[in-house]
Amino acid sequence: MSKLIIVGTVAFDAIETPFGKTDKILGGAATFIGLAASQFEVDGAIVSVVGGDFPKEYIDMLEDRGLDVSCLEVVENGKTFFWSGKYHNDMNTRDTLITELNVLADFKPVVPESYKDAKVVMLGNLHPLVQLRVIEQMNEKPDIVILDTMNFWMDSALDDLMKVIAKVDVITINDEEARQLTGEYSLVVAAKKIMTMGPEFVVIKKGEHGALLFFEDEIFYAPALPLKEVFDPTGAGDTFAGGFAGYLAKTEDYSFGNLKKAIIYGSALASFSVEKFGTERMINLEKEELYERIVQFKNLTQFDLSE
Amino acid sequence: MSKLIIVGTVAFDAIETPFGKTDKILGGAATFIGLAASQFEVDGAIVSVVGGDFPKEYIDMLEDRGLDVSCLEVVENGKTFFWSGKYHNDMNTRDTLITELNVLADFKPVVPESYKDAKVVMLGNLHPLVQLRVIEQMNEKPDIVILDTMNFWMDSALDDLMKVIAKVDVITINDEEARQLTGEYSLVVAAKKIMTMGPEFVVIKKGEHGALLFFEDEIFYAPALPLKEVFDPTGAGDTFAGGFAGYLAKTEDYSFGNLKKAIIYGSALASFSVEKFGTERMINLEKEELYERIVQFKNLTQFDLSE
Repeated sequence: MSKLIIVGTVAFDAIETPFGKTDKILGGAATFIGLAASQFEVDGAIVSVVGGDFPKEYIDMLEDRGLDVSCLEVVENGKTFFWSGKYHNDMNTRDTLITELNVLADFKPVVPESYKDAKVVMLGNLHPLVQLRVIEQMNEKPDIVILDTMNFWMDSALDDLMKVIAKVDVITINDEEARQLTGEYSLVVAAKKIMTMGPEFVVIKKGEHGALLFFEDEIFYAPALPLKEVFDPTGAGDTFAGGFAGYLAKTEDYSFGNLKKAIIYGSALASFSVEKFGTERMINLEKEELYERIVQFKNLTQFDLSE
Repeated sequence: MSKLIIVGTVAFDAIETPFGKTDKILGGAATFIGLAASQFEVDGAIVSVVGGDFPKEYIDMLEDRGLDVSCLEVVENGKTFFWSGKYHNDMNTRDTLITELNVLADFKPVVPESYKDAKVVMLGNLHPLVQLRVIEQMNEKPDIVILDTMNFWMDSALDDLMKVIAKVDVITINDEEARQLTGEYSLVVAAKKIMTMGPEFVVIKKGEHGALLFFEDEIFYAPALPLKEVFDPTGAGDTFAGGFAGYLAKTEDYSFGNLKKAIIYGSALASFSVEKFGTERMINLEKEELYERIVQFKNLTQFDLSE
């Protein structure tokens, strides 16, 4: 098992969907990534920041799941990052109602000394300069650095983002972001172009349509599980990334064949995440449930040509 | 091998895409279905109508591929159905520029006497009453009746369409049409609702995102092959349906497991169809190419949990 560094937000979310709305609940990219990765009992550390208003029970919960929280900085006189959003009826689009950066505005990530030799680094969605600062603190090149990012940084910090992209092995973005980053409509052409920017592997997330993994001239298509209802999509992409990174940290195999499996695990975990508001489903997820769902994913696409 | 009846338009299309435009070329649902099904050397008959302006060489070409054209009616003093459309840059949406029904307006389909015992019936996109009239001419219930339709008939002839839907075993529609037909956003819920209308199997086509096959509580997800470019999407859905129906007519196995394979063959054939304008790619397609692409589809989704 490899050590895993997880950088990203630990936050409060207030969410409104057609199914209901929440007050401030636990959220943040690093939270969802950590919860997903902890399914694999990895040796993971969360690098993030919260304010004095952040409940200690949330931190304890993360620690109980085996995550190192020594570099989850608590700024006692600051407030935790807060995001509020409202999903439209189709659940595929949402409006951001509130974004309060708070303690995140001055966040200087510090990688714990004992994790500077981590082999797997998961850069959750954050300002590219924060992501870069994490890479720079590593003692040696990790076996695999995975970058999750979004269109917001393409619009506001493209030069910095390109510097991070140049240093990572895997990038995960959604289809529209891949098109925006490359100016190419075809995802096959876009993925090839992104490979020339740095990453050896390109993961393009297509929400309810699944995810594509590109490597050299090969393509793997991981379906999304068709669901009766999506209750709250918040954190699904982070959960996907966390499952992907956690599976790789557990197995220490960075081949194309194993990355396929990591994507299936990420997809399966994301399919749970959307079943309840916020982190609720992920906190209560049992290993047996994950195993059953992996079998469902297998059955979903399996066909036998030889019969 | 079962006999296969194919009903649908045989037409002229004029197509404009970002890659170019064509004059009136060979098109029509039954044409694309027939070309796809003929890859399986089925005993198929095309039930359709054209005008005196329709080149005999096109009819000869269909006949050369083993398709019975004795009930492809030629109205000597009439004009062939003509459709003209222009695709937008994303290739997922198009504007219809011209629709001239011509001889199709008074079309009364006649099933050849020797095909009234056909075991497989493929109802290509046409007015539901025409589709119904074909079903009514069969001597006995076919093993499998497959319906392709579209939102146009939901808007203009819903009552008639519901009568056809009640009589078929398989329906193939796209995701938006499934939502329109049922008022349900979730495709899982929509498919269940469509099953109560008649069909035992529901195929939901999602274009570049693949297709879903629903049967009882089971789901199969067939990917679409990610393509560098889509040259002309015209006829892709018909080609998909034709490959599906042709494979079933060849194998005479109507189990869920075999329908999965039929969908993969349909998807593979559709992935060729879009590579050139109109029917060009399908007319020149070699069996070896199809076999290679089926292997590509297999590799696209295959992963090994046991390793």
